[in-house]
Amino acid sequence: MTVTIALDCMGGDHGVKVTVPTAIHFVKNVPDAHVILVGLSDEINAALSRHPHNKDRLTVIHAEEVIGMDEGPAQALRTKKNSSMRIAVNLIKEDQANACVSAGNTGALMAISRFVLKMLPGIERPAIASFLPTHHGQVCMLDLGANVDCSAEHLFQFAVMGSCLVTSSGGSNFPSIGLLNIGSEDIKGNEVVKEASELLKHSSLNFKGNVEGTDIYRGTTDVIVCDGFVGNVALKTSEGLAQMLGKYLKEEFHRNLLTKILGVLASPVINRFKKRVDHRRYNGASLLGLRGIVVKSHGAADVYSLGFAMQRAYEEVKHSMLDAITDNIKVPEQREL
Amino acid sequence: MTVTIALDCMGGDHGVKVTVPTAIHFVKNVPDAHVILVGLSDEINAALSRHPHNKDRLTVIHAEEVIGMDEGPAQALRTKKNSSMRIAVNLIKEDQANACVSAGNTGALMAISRFVLKMLPGIERPAIASFLPTHHGQVCMLDLGANVDCSAEHLFQFAVMGSCLVTSSGGSNFPSIGLLNIGSEDIKGNEVVKEASELLKHSSLNFKGNVEGTDIYRGTTDVIVCDGFVGNVALKTSEGLAQMLGKYLKEEFHRNLLTKILGVLASPVINRFKKRVDHRRYNGASLLGLRGIVVKSHGAADVYSLGFAMQRAYEEVKHSMLDAITDNIKVPEQREL
Repeated sequence: MTVTIALDCMGGDHGVKVTVPTAIHFVKNVPDAHVILVGLSDEINAALSRHPHNKDRLTVIHAEEVIGMDEGPAQALRTKKNSSMRIAVNLIKEDQANACVSAGNTGALMAISRFVLKMLPGIERPAIASFLPTHHGQVCMLDLGANVDCSAEHLFQFAVMGSCLVTSSGGSNFPSIGLLNIGSEDIKGNEVVKEASELLKHSSLNFKGNVEGTDIYRGTTDVIVCDGFVGNVALKTSEGLAQMLGKYLKEEFHRNLLTKILGVLASPVINRFKKRVDHRRYNGASLLGLRGIVVKSHGAADVYSLGFAMQRAYEEVKHSMLDAITDNIKVPEQREL
Repeated sequence: MTVTIALDCMGGDHGVKVTVPTAIHFVKNVPDAHVILVGLSDEINAALSRHPHNKDRLTVIHAEEVIGMDEGPAQALRTKKNSSMRIAVNLIKEDQANACVSAGNTGALMAISRFVLKMLPGIERPAIASFLPTHHGQVCMLDLGANVDCSAEHLFQFAVMGSCLVTSSGGSNFPSIGLLNIGSEDIKGNEVVKEASELLKHSSLNFKGNVEGTDIYRGTTDVIVCDGFVGNVALKTSEGLAQMLGKYLKEEFHRNLLTKILGVLASPVINRFKKRVDHRRYNGASLLGLRGIVVKSHGAADVYSLGFAMQRAYEEVKHSMLDAITDNIKVPEQREL
């Protein structure tokens, strides 16, 4: 089976300069992939003409409009019906694509995807999930910002979806799940977390109990579940800390001539270190809970980075992640506590 | 004026082995400081006898009991009335000490301090505040875990207290305040955060609006306000990420003989880097909102690290932080929105 990915070519900070070469590269490396390039066809064709490419597995679909990075989701949903993002998502609905990837406005992508594709049965809220590096592998964390207020039921549904995402990404078939809290004891945390813990304990999921912020990068569990406010803060705090540490390290190696020489000498080691923590390898956040596979790339993504988001979408299709979620979620009426 | 600090000598992972030398060192360096060493007097005196020390500015007060690191706060409060922690806090209440420092059980310290000292007028909830390093200085963040559910009023009170703490620590006289959120726009966040934002906008504080997780280490503002669940997760996530990056860097330098040699060569640079990000320099979390100055040290603190917690307590006394909070908080009846 060919996996067709609709790529919103206008999204992100760099538009066709990054999206088109990524698509060319992707179909070259993945023999059963087809990419539909959606956006201003003049720009896309001009970008295509600059590189040799496989014409059979790259299709262009014109879209008149572009959604800006600062546009409100409701506004984008209502007024930009011919945007590259909207048309890319529509292609899933119309069975012309198996998945959609966009580096555009997150809020608009979520609103459009939810409106066009609708939710999977038994899932009340979509969640944003991403992988983060750990001491010895990676962890899937969700929600990273789609929901600022969550009920215990929502957190439970996130656990099911995160579990399916891990399995679909070549991870464990029975992923361990941690509930993000401020202490590992049962008595800790707010009411929602305590209630979610009870739901998870009585489920068929591989629930390991509460985990703390320190456990994220320790890789204590395969999945970490939290509400979107907490998840977003944890993710962005990490981003800020990594930037600061990187800046400090650079400054120390640039302090004087001697340290600069040491920096050059140590560069093979430092570069290996940098490669290991390169956030680009973790690019691609899955919008879970929808009746379709939608992956959001970081807006600043380059060709290397966007390729990982494409790969994420490809794997979710290949491993029938949506079927897995549907099979594993019981619709509320059926669930017993 | 002499600043008298009651030090719970039994708290923390190392007890008198760390607390007593820290006290000796502290009074040696701070000419107007006096430390009351509270705990098992035999142990304290034995530790004192091992080092030359200033007898005039070190007093021992015996305490029969010790609160364990895993004891429940309610249990500790009810049953351990002769514990070193309880007696150290009592000394503030009895005007024998200006502040208390403990590396013991956080929950017990909070419960005992709140019970013995009571809250300042106009403050409904205590908060845990600490300083974190930024690109170009430090930021005061609160609450770091005392409150899992906060109202907008609580967040507002945290802002006032954080502001006073910054000024008392030699920082700005009009500290800038950021409200931790998942986007900088006003429409972002949950209802509590939105309401807190309104309260802050209409206050006399130097409120800069919403900030995101990335802003913590960027040092966008002098103070960052959030609820204790989010603050605790952000802090512990940072701890976990820093550990992982440190481990990765070490591993890369230990990969083979060549990288080990490079590691030795680069060690002056790496050590400067490590010193700059040494979390021990940020040890000492202030328990704010109480009618007394209480500072919690990390349980694993060594002499170097505990000294910073002592210094924090000393500065809060010197700068009359409690008066500043009282002057800056309006009791709820008086506040107009």
